[in-house]
Amino acid sequence: MANPSILILAGDGIGPEVMSEVKKIISWFGDNRGLHFDLSEDLVGGCAYDAHGTPLHDDTMAKAQEVDAVLLGAVGGPKYDALDFSLKPERGLLRLRKEMDLFSNLRPAQCFDALADFSSLKKDIVAGLDIMIVRELTSGVYFGEPRGIHTEGNERVGINTQRYTESEIARVARSAFELARKRGNKVCSMEKANVMESGILWRDVVTEIHAKEYPDVELSHMYADNGAMQLVRNPKQFDVIVTDNLFGDLLSDAAAMLTGSLGMLPSASLGAPMANGRPKALYEPVHGSAPDIAGQGKANPIACILSFAMALRYSFDLGTEADQLEAAVEKVLADGLRTGDLMGPDGGTPVSTSEMGDAIIAAL
Amino acid sequence: MANPSILILAGDGIGPEVMSEVKKIISWFGDNRGLHFDLSEDLVGGCAYDAHGTPLHDDTMAKAQEVDAVLLGAVGGPKYDALDFSLKPERGLLRLRKEMDLFSNLRPAQCFDALADFSSLKKDIVAGLDIMIVRELTSGVYFGEPRGIHTEGNERVGINTQRYTESEIARVARSAFELARKRGNKVCSMEKANVMESGILWRDVVTEIHAKEYPDVELSHMYADNGAMQLVRNPKQFDVIVTDNLFGDLLSDAAAMLTGSLGMLPSASLGAPMANGRPKALYEPVHGSAPDIAGQGKANPIACILSFAMALRYSFDLGTEADQLEAAVEKVLADGLRTGDLMGPDGGTPVSTSEMGDAIIAAL
Ligand SMILES: CC(C)[C@H](C(=O)O)[C@@H](O)C(=O)O
Ligand SMILES: CC(C)[C@H](C(=O)O)[C@@H](O)C(=O)O
Repeated sequence: MANPSILILAGDGIGPEVMSEVKKIISWFGDNRGLHFDLSEDLVGGCAYDAHGTPLHDDTMAKAQEVDAVLLGAVGGPKYDALDFSLKPERGLLRLRKEMDLFSNLRPAQCFDALADFSSLKKDIVAGLDIMIVRELTSGVYFGEPRGIHTEGNERVGINTQRYTESEIARVARSAFELARKRGNKVCSMEKANVMESGILWRDVVTEIHAKEYPDVELSHMYADNGAMQLVRNPKQFDVIVTDNLFGDLLSDAAAMLTGSLGMLPSASLGAPMANGRPKALYEPVHGSAPDIAGQGKANPIACILSFAMALRYSFDLGTEADQLEAAVEKVLADGLRTGDLMGPDGGTPVSTSEMGDAIIAAL
Repeated sequence: MANPSILILAGDGIGPEVMSEVKKIISWFGDNRGLHFDLSEDLVGGCAYDAHGTPLHDDTMAKAQEVDAVLLGAVGGPKYDALDFSLKPERGLLRLRKEMDLFSNLRPAQCFDALADFSSLKKDIVAGLDIMIVRELTSGVYFGEPRGIHTEGNERVGINTQRYTESEIARVARSAFELARKRGNKVCSMEKANVMESGILWRDVVTEIHAKEYPDVELSHMYADNGAMQLVRNPKQFDVIVTDNLFGDLLSDAAAMLTGSLGMLPSASLGAPMANGRPKALYEPVHGSAPDIAGQGKANPIACILSFAMALRYSFDLGTEADQLEAAVEKVLADGLRTGDLMGPDGGTPVSTSEMGDAIIAAL
């Protein structure tokens, strides 16, 4: 049987640096565990625009559809700020999400023991935190039509459309319930059903799927504004949170920041199963391209490395290897190794991007 | 000249209890400062539905349009959960906002010195925090058409529309810049211009108004997801934040929770000047109707009292009296008086709703 295939899209800013460390780790698994992957690389975001005048070339899109998993670094940078909306680096990422139909975006917000002091929240509020935000990623106001800016009378009007179909809600709800069964068995669904009809439909469909297919999972509902509050007040009350594309964008960023470990947090974006049974999948760190520190060996590669761990788990059914990689990360943190973003209250040993990668390999 | 007029809409849950304390304070200003108001009272929310079958009677709406200021307690309760969308208590509140055209919702997030330990955030992150969120309140996805749930093929589809006109953005931007000039002279505008065209228009209009009318104020822009993060990471970086209706809903709740004083935070919703020069105005606490503790004398009346202080300042140009009332609140907190919601790390003297009101009057 052919090796599983991975397309690497390192992107812009610190993307290529952090991805280099992932490539070292992939090699390590090949050399030491006989796990071989067919790797290919291509461009996305600003670098794709520089090369081809588009943030995602059609050929790259086609490749992404064929591989078993895409690993993405980060996109964007000030150089591209003035570009037209349709040419911005972000459009490359949004096109991948949409055309691969990656409807379920898994964003774990985990507080690493070694880093519990780094949070702006009190230690007892975040220590041991382990929640999973499941964000719908292919619909809602990100993609709804009509949209755009037009003129009415003598003024401009900006329009976007929040639109959800029953089946779009049902499939992401199922993925949240499935995940919950493997974790704390609790799902909290967030919307603004008190204000938005799309939120009413969201709540109704989640409730129906729950009753019919997952009555064993504990389900609660919360308005998204209260959700934002509760995440700050007492995040450990949650296990799995399921929410729409836009609320998920804000709530997962707030949740990520709670942990004090933004440079640490991975994500997986999953779609429907392909012919080989693997889901369409893209893995990327939650952090951005950090143009201010790009190319200086300062970036923290851990979020990107943990994204690869999620790939091992969700695309390749290699849960043991994923656990091992995650344990190696915990170990180097416990040993006090710190990239610049982690130089905080506890001192620690400063290391570069590649020293961090090497240490994780050593810990494996 | 006639006395200024105030319409009191105490609403549901703890609304009537906290409003009673405000009424005592209004009497105190009459007896001791010769400040007399023409008070009238009416129903909004669930109690209006119980009496009239609608969460806001047309007569009440008409009265609200005529008075100098509306004071609102809180609306909603589990009793009304099963009601149709159009009859829910919230619709009464939303109708007031919309028909009075209260486009500028001021939500201060302030950390009271006496309560800095109550936050889930570390004390140094929140001590002295004083930011003002200016939320657009009459447009965006809350009111945009088309909206609703319909059937397409064999499934339901939920739709809402985010819609902003140039003039809607301009007027709330102006109100944020005006406020900033009286505070730290900094405005941060938040949207998702990287994803939503309505966000691009928002950013463009705010930038234009700034350049033409408020070049002396420092302006920055931030994506709303990053805004949610930055509020958790380092809220003191902000002075005034201006944002749309839906982002404002989430971000102001997160900001309120940072202070650990949700039962303490007031809000003002302001519209255009009336013939007498006063703005259309509604004042209400940020907290909800808390049905679980209603009628037990446990509610904290401070948010409602501070909302009246905002009325003194923004509707009646009585800044000195507002300062005085705010100082009285600070004093009773410093003295250790605590309603149930404030019984936290520092012990303190437990008091009931009306004891808290009496103590504030004594401090005046
Ligand atoms: C870069 C941007 C388009 C993106 C989003 O808004 O989804 C990012 O914020 C994210 O959360 O992945
Ligand atoms: C009660 C609800 C309709 C309201 C809103 O969403 O605006 C509330 O959350 C608020 O922030 O005032």
